Order: sequence, then C-alpha cells, then structure tokens
Amino acid sequence: METLNLYNTLSRKKEVFEPIYPPNVGMYVCGPTVYGDPHLGHARPAITFDLVFRYLKFLKYKVRYVRNITDVGHLENDADEGEDKIAKKARLEQLEPMEIAQFYTDRYHKFMDALNVQRPGIEPRASGHIPEQIETIQKILDAGYAYESNGSVYFDVLKYNQDQHYGKLSGRVLDELLATTRDNLDGQHEKRNTPDFALWKKASPEHIMRWKSPWSVGFPGWHIECTAMGCKYLGDTFDIHGGGMDLLFPHHESEIAQACIANKVEPTKYWMHNNMITINGQKMGKSLGNFITLEQFFTGSHESLEKAYSPMTIRFFVLQAHYRSTLDFSNEALQSAEKGLKRLQEAKKTLQTLTHRDDASIALNPEIAKLPDNCRIAMNDDFNSPIVIANLFEAVRIINIAQDQKIQLSNADLDVLKTLFDVYYTEILGLSDESEHNNSDLVDGLMQMILDIRQQAKINKDYATSDRIRDALTALNIVVKDGKDGATWSV
Amino acid sequence: METLNLYNTLSRKKEVFEPIYPPNVGMYVCGPTVYGDPHLGHARPAITFDLVFRYLKFLKYKVRYVRNITDVGHLENDADEGEDKIAKKARLEQLEPMEIAQFYTDRYHKFMDALNVQRPGIEPRASGHIPEQIETIQKILDAGYAYESNGSVYFDVLKYNQDQHYGKLSGRVLDELLATTRDNLDGQHEKRNTPDFALWKKASPEHIMRWKSPWSVGFPGWHIECTAMGCKYLGDTFDIHGGGMDLLFPHHESEIAQACIANKVEPTKYWMHNNMITINGQKMGKSLGNFITLEQFFTGSHESLEKAYSPMTIRFFVLQAHYRSTLDFSNEALQSAEKGLKRLQEAKKTLQTLTHRDDASIALNPEIAKLPDNCRIAMNDDFNSPIVIANLFEAVRIINIAQDQKIQLSNADLDVLKTLFDVYYTEILGLSDESEHNNSDLVDGLMQMILDIRQQAKINKDYATSDRIRDALTALNIVVKDGKDGATWSV
Repeated sequence: METLNLYNTLSRKKEVFEPIYPPNVGMYVCGPTVYGDPHLGHARPAITFDLVFRYLKFLKYKVRYVRNITDVGHLENDADEGEDKIAKKARLEQLEPMEIAQFYTDRYHKFMDALNVQRPGIEPRASGHIPEQIETIQKILDAGYAYESNGSVYFDVLKYNQDQHYGKLSGRVLDELLATTRDNLDGQHEKRNTPDFALWKKASPEHIMRWKSPWSVGFPGWHIECTAMGCKYLGDTFDIHGGGMDLLFPHHESEIAQACIANKVEPTKYWMHNNMITINGQKMGKSLGNFITLEQFFTGSHESLEKAYSPMTIRFFVLQAHYRSTLDFSNEALQSAEKGLKRLQEAKKTLQTLTHRDDASIALNPEIAKLPDNCRIAMNDDFNSPIVIANLFEAVRIINIAQDQKIQLSNADLDVLKTLFDVYYTEILGLSDESEHNNSDLVDGLMQMILDIRQQAKINKDYATSDRIRDALTALNIVVKDGKDGATWSV
Repeated sequence: METLNLYNTLSRKKEVFEPIYPPNVGMYVCGPTVYGDPHLGHARPAITFDLVFRYLKFLKYKVRYVRNITDVGHLENDADEGEDKIAKKARLEQLEPMEIAQFYTDRYHKFMDALNVQRPGIEPRASGHIPEQIETIQKILDAGYAYESNGSVYFDVLKYNQDQHYGKLSGRVLDELLATTRDNLDGQHEKRNTPDFALWKKASPEHIMRWKSPWSVGFPGWHIECTAMGCKYLGDTFDIHGGGMDLLFPHHESEIAQACIANKVEPTKYWMHNNMITINGQKMGKSLGNFITLEQFFTGSHESLEKAYSPMTIRFFVLQAHYRSTLDFSNEALQSAEKGLKRLQEAKKTLQTLTHRDDASIALNPEIAKLPDNCRIAMNDDFNSPIVIANLFEAVRIINIAQDQKIQLSNADLDVLKTLFDVYYTEILGLSDESEHNNSDLVDGLMQMILDIRQQAKINKDYATSDRIRDALTALNIVVKDGKDGATWSV
C-alpha cells in the first residue's frame, strides 16, 4: 500500500516509483501552444498532471515541476504585401507574435486557474531559450547525428537507429515510416530520409519569429525545446515526463533521440501519457464543428452544449475516468458528473453539521475505517482517481444515513470522514466549492428577501422580528438606510 | 479639451501627445524584479501606467503595452561548498533561480490582478532575451562606445558624453559623477571611469544564472534588457517609456545612451515617471522596519497597520494623488481613502435605484452637465486622476440630494451620471466593487438569518411569512432540507 506504482509508457508496464534523487522529483510536462484559446485538449493533461503533482507533494516529495509554453509560432506576414513593403512598415504597425502568445498564455492561465490546476514551479517559454536550443543542436551536429541542409538542420533518424532504437517509446516501426513518402511537404526535399525531423529551420521571408544561429536566421524545430529546457531545469535525466498520448509520436520519440545523442543518456525514467478525449464519440476537430473551447463549456455558448458546465464539473468529469482511459464528453455524461459533484459537495457540507453521538461505539465504524486505505491504495495504483471518487461516494452514503439518524457516529468516525474529504476531495483531487465565488446576485437576492420580511414585519407591528433582523444585520456589518424609494443596504 | 497633454521628463514640460504612428501607441514600462514579494513600490507604477493604458485605449489608440520581468537574478550558490562540490550536485538538488523567479512572477500577477491592473500586451522576461541583448551590446562595441575588460563589457560614458549628453534625462552632472570614486565596488577596477556601467558581466564561479557570450560566460547588465526588448517589440523609437522616478538614474539615463549608440536614434518620445511613496513620512526600507508588502496591506498583518486595507482601497488611495506627487501612506490617510471609496461605491449603487422625475426640467441639470467635461479636461491634463475623483464626489453629492428628493433629475441627467461612473469610475480609474468577490461568509450569515426567521414564523404559525420565504428561496434556486439537527440549504 505504501508504494506508488505508475505505468511507464516506455516499459509498457506498471513500475514502482523510485525517484533518482529522493526526496527530489523532477517532472516535465508538455504545456500549451499559445496560438489559440484553451480547450478540452488542454484541460485533460493539465488536470492529469496536476493530480500527479498534488499526490507527489502529498507523499512529501520535493517536486520541481516544469511545464513549458510553446510560443515559437508559425505566424507569417501577409505575403501579398511583399517582403520590401513589410520591412518598411513600422514595427508598431506589424503583427507581433509575442502579443498573440502573451494573450493566449494569459487566457490559458485564467482557465487553468478556474479548473483549480496548480501552477508549475517553472514555466519556461520556448522563445526564451533560443541559446540553449542552439547549443543542444550543436551537440547533436558535433556528434554526427544531424546534418545541415540549405540553412536548416535535420536529425538523422536512420543513423541514430543504427545503434539505438527510434520507436522504442511509441512502438512505431521505422521501415513503415520510411515507406511513407510525403514529397514537398515540410522541407521534404532538404531531408536525406523521410523520418528525419527538423532541429532548426531557416525562416522563409514571411516568417515573423526568427533568430540568428550558426546555420541561418530561423527558428528551432518543435521537439528541441523540450530537450533543451528539460535538461536545463531538471538535469540530463529526470524522473517523470508527461503529456498527452498524441505527443507520443513524433514529439516524445524524437525528444528521446535528441537527448540520447546530445546528453548521451536517457532523458526520462518514467514516461506518462494521458489518453485522448472525444466528443459524442468523435475526435474533436475544427472541421467537425465539435471544437469546444473551455470558455464555451463554462458559459454554455456552443450549439452542441445544452447548458453551461462549471469548471469544477469539468475537472470532476475528467477525474472520474482513469487518465489512461479515453474520455467521451456528452451533455448526458456532463450532467451526470454535475449531479455527482453536487452530491459530494452537499455531503461535505452536511458533514460539518453532524454531531457525534455519545452512545456510539468507541471503535471506528469498519465501513468508515477502510475508506482512507482504499483511497491511498487507489492513488498508489497509477493514480486511480475514479476509485478514489467511488470511495468518496461511499462516504456520502454513510454521511446521509448518519444525517437521517439511522447510524451512530463517534467523534473518531467523524474525524476520519472529515480528514478523508480534506485530503482526497480538496488536497489531492483538487475539487473546490464553487459557490464561494461570484455569488453577488445571491447576496442581492437574499438581502432583498430580508428587507421585504423586515418591511412586512414593520407593517404587522411584529417588532420582535424586525428587531431580530436589525441585530443580525448589524452582526454581519450590514447597514440599512431607509429612503423614500425604499430601503438600501451596504456592507 | 480634446488634446491629451503629458509631462515629458525629458523636456521637463507638458507636451501635446502626438504618437509617432497614429493610431498606434507603443508604451514600455519597467516591470518588477521578481526576487521578492510585491510591495507598495510595485503598486504605484503599475497603477499609474494602468491609468495611462486605460485612458489611451479610451481615446481609441491601439496601444502595444510592454512591461518587462527582470528575472536575471543575482542568486549565488553557497560559496562554502566550493565550486567542485556544487558542480557535482545533481541539478535537482541545486537552487534553481527560475523557480524563485516564477514564484514571484506569479505572486506579482496575483496582486496586480487584485489591484485591477490590466495585463500588458507583452511581458518579456530578461532571461528570455539573451541573444537580443548580446546583439545590442555587440552593436555598441562595434560603434566604439564600449570596451571589454576581463570578460566583462562596459559602456564608455565619457566617450559618449563627448558628442551626446549623459544626464539629459536625469539632470545629473557628469563631473560630479566622476568625482565620486567608489573603489573596489561593482567591478570598479575593471572600469576606465567611475560612471561607466556594465553591459555584460563575467559570472563569478558561484553566480548561478549564466549564459555564453562572445566575451565570457556571464549575464547581461541591468540596463541593456530594456533597450533590447523595447526595440524588439516597439521599434527603435517608441512613444512612451514609463517607470518610477527612482529609475531615472542610472537606469533610464543609461537606456538612452545605449539606444542612441546601438540604434542611432532617441529611444523614446515621451518619458513618464511616477513619484515615490513614503510611509508615515519616511522612505520605505527593510532596515527601517516599515517595509510592507501588498499581502500585508491586504491582510493587515504588519505591526504598523491598524487594520487590513482592501486592494481597491490601495488603488483608490494611489489614484487620489497625482502620479507626479509624492504619496505618503499612513493608517489615517488609508482609512480616509477607504471611507471616500465607500461613499463612491454607495452612490454608484444608489444611482441604479434612482428614478427620473417626469416633472424634472428637460434641459440637463447644468451641475451634472459639466462633470464629464471636467473629468475629460483633468485626464487630458497629464492624467490628473485626483481632479477626476473630486468630480465623482461632486456627482455623489448630487446623487445623495436626489435620493433625499431635494432635486429632480430627468432621464437625461441620470444617463449622464451613469455614464460618468461607467467611464471614469470603472473604465478609466479601474475601480471595482469588491463585495462581488469572496462573500461566502456573508451568504452563510444571511441564510442563517433567513432560516431563523422561517423557524420562528413556523413556531408562531405565521404561515404567510414562511410561505413567502419558501417562494423567494425557490426563486433563488435555494433548496432547504429540514433535518433533526436543524435545516440545511444548498444552491
């Protein structure tokens, strides 16, 4: 029970988690590309690795959590204008990719905060680590596993595969990759072989984000940023590398290849991947009309949504499935999650009002006693959040029976239940009570009701009630002013 | 009235604001050094230039607002351990400056959000722009206005002053600077002359943040980041450069010198500086025991604070003084600001409840009619927020008289007042009603009161009241459950 086991994509089995430098844990997770609004595809890995981060901290590990921001965008100037004309434009009149990247970075943070996803310890931007990437590329070139072609630099996959195994993470077979010829696509004519990937790309005239390098004015290939930044902040080999399953190939496969050449060691001890989401059984895609942003979920402003779903509903829904299962979003499933979450929230509130019974047995109720162990075993079994949630629902059942006075709970029983909610519901699953926020309408409505009752009491000469209201409002620091248009109030 | 005038520190007079590429405006403001918790010295420039940013947008300018994050820290490894021992330590076990920088960047954002300071369009990190800084330094070296010394590079202030004027912004006199000899301090022995400043510093063995450069493994000098990043995102010459008056010298003076050599043009058309803050008449300083962080202000957890002051109280207090005046924080002054803000908030609420009188004159009340003009004139006169606030208080006076039915307001009068609050209170001054947030205690208190009244009504067999409460709660989506331990509720 005390050992954390996690599924390592690299070995394709569950392994005991043994960090390289305990009690330190280094974790790198692939973050967002900040050229679009955050959507479900961002929410699932963020929540998955937030669960991992929270649980590792609960286990008293000292976690250095790095999640990158991919801001080396592929924005282009309007080619119609011609390069000369663009060069003559004042900088201020030109599109500035960093302005777009900053906008979507801020949006990403806003929505991840709403989902109660904790911020990583370091959030490095790809554009902010150009020297480190150039240095890593140079190491690969020096080792002879990359070649320059027309100002761009490519990783030589075939040469790498001679003494190492390109495909060991993703299970892809190189011969099959070789058979796929995609001429004229993505610098294909510059490559020696189809599976080779870019480490550095020479910028075309209209490409806006560009830096000097020994090879050309250009920009880094996609895979190199994670190798350079992971190594910079976590060392040549670190404990956990996470991301969505869509990143297995070519991104993570290529990261391994880059690191094994540049640093001469495997970059990561445990590779973790969350499975994909679908919407009504279909892959989410802009062309399918089922591309729903988080803002649309939170506000209900997408035609395929029957209503708005709160951030906590989304979070709870994601955690109700194990991270390695696929997850299908539908109105039905979300509404069921919403109801389930509400039951948990209400039971948590009820728990605060339950009083222990002096006539209860001093021994712990065995049904309650096993719940924390069940949760711990589930988390230690590859972060099995659905089983944790099932055990919380078992606690709900017991709380509701106790509320109906059908069983008697001792002080110790209540303590175990409260700790269970504090630890698993709040700390590890990261669920929170949303009604804490933005309830000004509710306050206005309640105050209106109270002022009406007070008014009615005065009319009825029921001074006991109106005095009680006055005193209770004073205790809440609320001042009521009577005017000719009626009473107004302020805190 | 339609022309914006602002005080240009460079010319020492108010000038008509004429952007270089209208309707675009480029604005660069010196942001925080993220190695400490945000305090009042961060709040004032952030709020000042937030006012400028908001007003420029209100005037329909297209503002590109850049505010940097200085994260090239001066953290050192523990020298006692010796360089060898440190080199052998695993990366994960070492102090990582970026983790500290990220922590304080997140804290800065959190507190600036609380102060309702809008995020800038681009927030570049100094550590993320090393190539740009190296390139700028190289340009200055190539032009002959810098020299290398022992792996570090210094700007040659005396040579620069031969054909340009070092001191034109700050009014410092070079001869006086030369007379100040500070031997052995800050690489003094490497400099040709005392006023020379570092463009690049060779890193000592224990210095953690370090990058390769043509001169040494080291780190950029403080002033060069703003020159490199301002130019990158806003062009060689941009409209507004802002910051606190403490940055006038040497920071901004040196920025001008660097840009005039590297880019051969003045970097900035209008230099704006907010004045300093004091606490009870004294400069704020850690040694004086009056160093108060924003968190301490918001929670009241500093021995010299009589109570907590809300973020909006701090914001309002800052805006009550003109940005070029000094500003003294004291409990008395803050409590007075708190009361003033409350009067504004209450009047704004009252305004929503006022109804127009059909017997009111159709012509606008002249006392109301002049208020928007007064506010606009004040803002156009170098962002004179205290005069805007004085006019809002004049509106409060009128609203309160109208509430007491002593004057009659037409629909047009009410519209002008509402627009005045929308535009100046909310949009430009950026004040907001804090009670909108975190009022769950209030909701709990009000609900307890309502349930008590309902309970009492049932005991009194006053079914009219208990039914009215039931219906009103249903309308607010509140469900009450009666249990043996009393009633509980949920939304």
